[in-house]
Amino acid sequence: MKVGVIGLGAMGAGLAESLLRAGHEVTVWNRSKGPADDLAGKGAKVAATPADAFAGDAAITMLANDEAVREVILGGGALDRAAPGLVHVLSATISVALARELETVHADKDVAFVSAPVLGRPDVAEKGELNVLAAGSADALAKVQPLLDAIGRKTWPLGDKPHLANVAKLAANFMIAVTIETLAETFAFAEKQGLDPNSFYELITGTLFAAPAFKVYGPLILAKEFEPAKFKLKLGLKDIRLALAAGEAAEVPLPFASVLRDNFVDAIANGAGEKDWSAMSEVAFRRAGLG
Amino acid sequence: MKVGVIGLGAMGAGLAESLLRAGHEVTVWNRSKGPADDLAGKGAKVAATPADAFAGDAAITMLANDEAVREVILGGGALDRAAPGLVHVLSATISVALARELETVHADKDVAFVSAPVLGRPDVAEKGELNVLAAGSADALAKVQPLLDAIGRKTWPLGDKPHLANVAKLAANFMIAVTIETLAETFAFAEKQGLDPNSFYELITGTLFAAPAFKVYGPLILAKEFEPAKFKLKLGLKDIRLALAAGEAAEVPLPFASVLRDNFVDAIANGAGEKDWSAMSEVAFRRAGLG
Amino acid sequence: MKVGVIGLGAMGAGLAESLLRAGHEVTVWNRSKGPADDLAGKGAKVAATPADAFAGDAAITMLANDEAVREVILGGGALDRAAPGLVHVLSATISVALARELETVHADKDVAFVSAPVLGRPDVAEKGELNVLAAGSADALAKVQPLLDAIGRKTWPLGDKPHLANVAKLAANFMIAVTIETLAETFAFAEKQGLDPNSFYELITGTLFAAPAFKVYGPLILAKEFEPAKFKLKLGLKDIRLALAAGEAAEVPLPFASVLRDNFVDAIANGAGEKDWSAMSEVAFRRAGLG
Amino acid sequence: MKVGVIGLGAMGAGLAESLLRAGHEVTVWNRSKGPADDLAGKGAKVAATPADAFAGDAAITMLANDEAVREVILGGGALDRAAPGLVHVLSATISVALARELETVHADKDVAFVSAPVLGRPDVAEKGELNVLAAGSADALAKVQPLLDAIGRKTWPLGDKPHLANVAKLAANFMIAVTIETLAETFAFAEKQGLDPNSFYELITGTLFAAPAFKVYGPLILAKEFEPAKFKLKLGLKDIRLALAAGEAAEVPLPFASVLRDNFVDAIANGAGEKDWSAMSEVAFRRAGLG
Repeated sequence: MKVGVIGLGAMGAGLAESLLRAGHEVTVWNRSKGPADDLAGKGAKVAATPADAFAGDAAITMLANDEAVREVILGGGALDRAAPGLVHVLSATISVALARELETVHADKDVAFVSAPVLGRPDVAEKGELNVLAAGSADALAKVQPLLDAIGRKTWPLGDKPHLANVAKLAANFMIAVTIETLAETFAFAEKQGLDPNSFYELITGTLFAAPAFKVYGPLILAKEFEPAKFKLKLGLKDIRLALAAGEAAEVPLPFASVLRDNFVDAIANGAGEKDWSAMSEVAFRRAGLG
Repeated sequence: MKVGVIGLGAMGAGLAESLLRAGHEVTVWNRSKGPADDLAGKGAKVAATPADAFAGDAAITMLANDEAVREVILGGGALDRAAPGLVHVLSATISVALARELETVHADKDVAFVSAPVLGRPDVAEKGELNVLAAGSADALAKVQPLLDAIGRKTWPLGDKPHLANVAKLAANFMIAVTIETLAETFAFAEKQGLDPNSFYELITGTLFAAPAFKVYGPLILAKEFEPAKFKLKLGLKDIRLALAAGEAAEVPLPFASVLRDNFVDAIANGAGEKDWSAMSEVAFRRAGLG
Repeated sequence: MKVGVIGLGAMGAGLAESLLRAGHEVTVWNRSKGPADDLAGKGAKVAATPADAFAGDAAITMLANDEAVREVILGGGALDRAAPGLVHVLSATISVALARELETVHADKDVAFVSAPVLGRPDVAEKGELNVLAAGSADALAKVQPLLDAIGRKTWPLGDKPHLANVAKLAANFMIAVTIETLAETFAFAEKQGLDPNSFYELITGTLFAAPAFKVYGPLILAKEFEPAKFKLKLGLKDIRLALAAGEAAEVPLPFASVLRDNFVDAIANGAGEKDWSAMSEVAFRRAGLG
Repeated sequence: MKVGVIGLGAMGAGLAESLLRAGHEVTVWNRSKGPADDLAGKGAKVAATPADAFAGDAAITMLANDEAVREVILGGGALDRAAPGLVHVLSATISVALARELETVHADKDVAFVSAPVLGRPDVAEKGELNVLAAGSADALAKVQPLLDAIGRKTWPLGDKPHLANVAKLAANFMIAVTIETLAETFAFAEKQGLDPNSFYELITGTLFAAPAFKVYGPLILAKEFEPAKFKLKLGLKDIRLALAAGEAAEVPLPFASVLRDNFVDAIANGAGEKDWSAMSEVAFRRAGLG
């Protein structure tokens, strides 16, 4: 398939590589030239404008946040120039409010729209083993399935309205942040009572909590290895803020998310904004006098 | 081995059966006669007093709470009459403060002491597939290992001071309660935005949260099947209270546990005290207007 | 003085009346005609556009929220047409971020800017007995002091940067919401233990908490009189949201505000959005089973 | 009247002085001799045992906590030897559970029982200007009213069951702790945005929050003067713990108290346990990076 990829940060570049490897015809665009040139060396065409990347069968956009989506996609007129029949696959973590707004914009401009945020860090993206959360019309989803198969190990269908994938993505990220906080509280609880947190980690990940979220974040927190960041703490706060805003709009209290919000703010106020978001664990440790 | 089993609730009876099945010589005692008679029919001897069950190589006590331990073990003089060399294995979820106090009492009376609370509900106990959290001196642990092997699928060693097993048990139960609350908040968040909570459940347990805690409690919460209780909500509150008290004594703030405490109290005030503790999820649903 | 008043809701109309009563020459503008006509009957001139009300010595704007300020003031070009030497007095509860942005806009357009939100409900505004929170340059403040004297019983100077008045206003509203929640929790605590909440109210407002916030909200909560709303609960949530956002931008965790946020969302999800914000107390009562 | 005073800490000694000043015949007892001797110098008789102080018309006990009440009053047999017609006035901050238990014990032993905790620090006690929270039978209250008049500026009647006074006392102390936290959060919020916390303090205590609680604690927090402690932070945690326990028994969630609990634990873990409880404000400051 002919596919555009817009936004070549670590995640977007990984996606593009997976698509090239799977034999698709890939056209890329990025604000700064470097990442696009790298991919050109691997067989991608480089588009001059975002709109030029909306000329094929599909365009995948992996932009940083709401502002970037507004500027690059809505501001750049890309949807107005989209090729007939093109499906726009939006893969960034954006607000539910913007996802809903984009549903209307796409309908108005008659461009098919699939929201497909992913679970997995850049190293997973590069291997094409992401989990893809996908929502949109059955037709549009079917059309881009070969692309989703190329970038992910599995696609999780979440409904026919694109924003539902964003709801799921925010909820999943919220659960990861809950995991970080839970491990931090229990490790502090263990350590101050003389129980080796490593033994406790072995126990829980060998029994009730034998799952990737615990096995990925537990060792980071135990080793206090928060740099370089795979996902920056200040972006973690952004995602919790988006979850709280979506909850507020839908009238759903989220007391755990509120605790997390305050802890992320605490962490940032104490210098950890650029560290990996697992550094939020430092808050529980510091509050227990384990600074 | 010759082993006494004291406390024949659902968990204790399951333990005793596993021990009999493994060929150990079991003497049982229970406040009410019924459960002891049942086990007599399966080959156990029935002791007249708790102290009479402290006559073999080991005695395992599975009592409901601190009060029962104080009354039956400390009040009954069992430790004074313990056979020379006997190891006392205490398997209930008790406070860390009492576990520490019992360390001193056992040392004073020269009775070996292992704390060995378990993870698993009664049906797991009956099959001998519990996870056993064990702490105590290496000698004492080695001596009772055949018994622990009979009741559990695996023993997790947590240190040489018995109370460390209780610290771990409270932390593990706290994590289960966190899981219940997290699922409740995210399911309410999904449902009110039109995302099928079942789809979200499939997503998370197929990816980052593919672990027993999520797979056991997710379906209960989705189906709202809270009766009959496997573990009563009011006992869930007791365990969180014990975790908070231990945290307070060790000077560890536990903000998630505080949220859980208030939610358990809310649930009880609204009639769910006798339901399964997964009914704590009703609080998040009710607060989101999904009563 | 010649003064424009823009935004004639209950608060704005009260301000305008106080200014007329004090002998100032008042020109009013409001989106809907009714309120302006009422004031015309009391001696005010009616402006055709917001910009026409920026023709005198000062213009006071009392608009509902950030969006209204953006639309009426920034969108309408009022600042571009402001009379030389005019001081713009902004009296609404807006975000700190917008207040900061307005500082820059006013500087760019060389219009003096005072931020002056008020404490007091409409009945207090009508009597000219508001407390005025004022921040801006000493010159600008001095110039409009006669106007502030007309609308308030006292002016509280908060610094030379206008946004500081908005910081103070959000903090003060946060404290009122804390008061509502505190009374709700303690009244529920009293009632369920057999202590008459009225006796407790008499005790605290006769001793340590003998202050208007407690004396205004205590009786409303005791009588459960939440309609008609003097200040709508959904606007209370808005103010807490603004406080949390300002706290986040300034890196200040606000755990009490987070509890309040969830309680306001709970109240709205359960039907109280249009009631007086003291109806947030229903949440504590419901959670205690006192529904 | 002939009155015994048991427990001569700062508060109890102040009470005894007020009673002597009012012309009552006072017999004192204290575990350590010093304070009793001081009062002997001012006209008090010294009792050899607590029971010896139960020989007059009334006995006022001002002991530190539940444990001291159990030991000195219940353990010492004082109630068994109480003079016929004597009224026992219990003035300490104890648990609601113990107050209820004492109701039964007094009824069994046929000793009249009034619970009368006070609001006010030792300097207020010395002047006889405490606020007295009193509950008990009308007869008993009437009988000891002259004594309560001597120690307090006003008596607040809270019902005919003694424990109701303890419910009110815990709720009042909870409100003071809420005040400390609220001032801490808003001062941090102000300071990090460039608003002088002193100006904000002037504003709120000049308007909506013009009450002793705010005027006593505001300046302490602004000046960060936490030593010497007038009321130790670790005792503040004790009172919040008692409030949470009473709330739990009565099935009342107390989310603000839960936040306070964690903050007190944080403060203690970071070295402030012996400081004045207003030092809990250091937590909000530290979490905002204002360490």
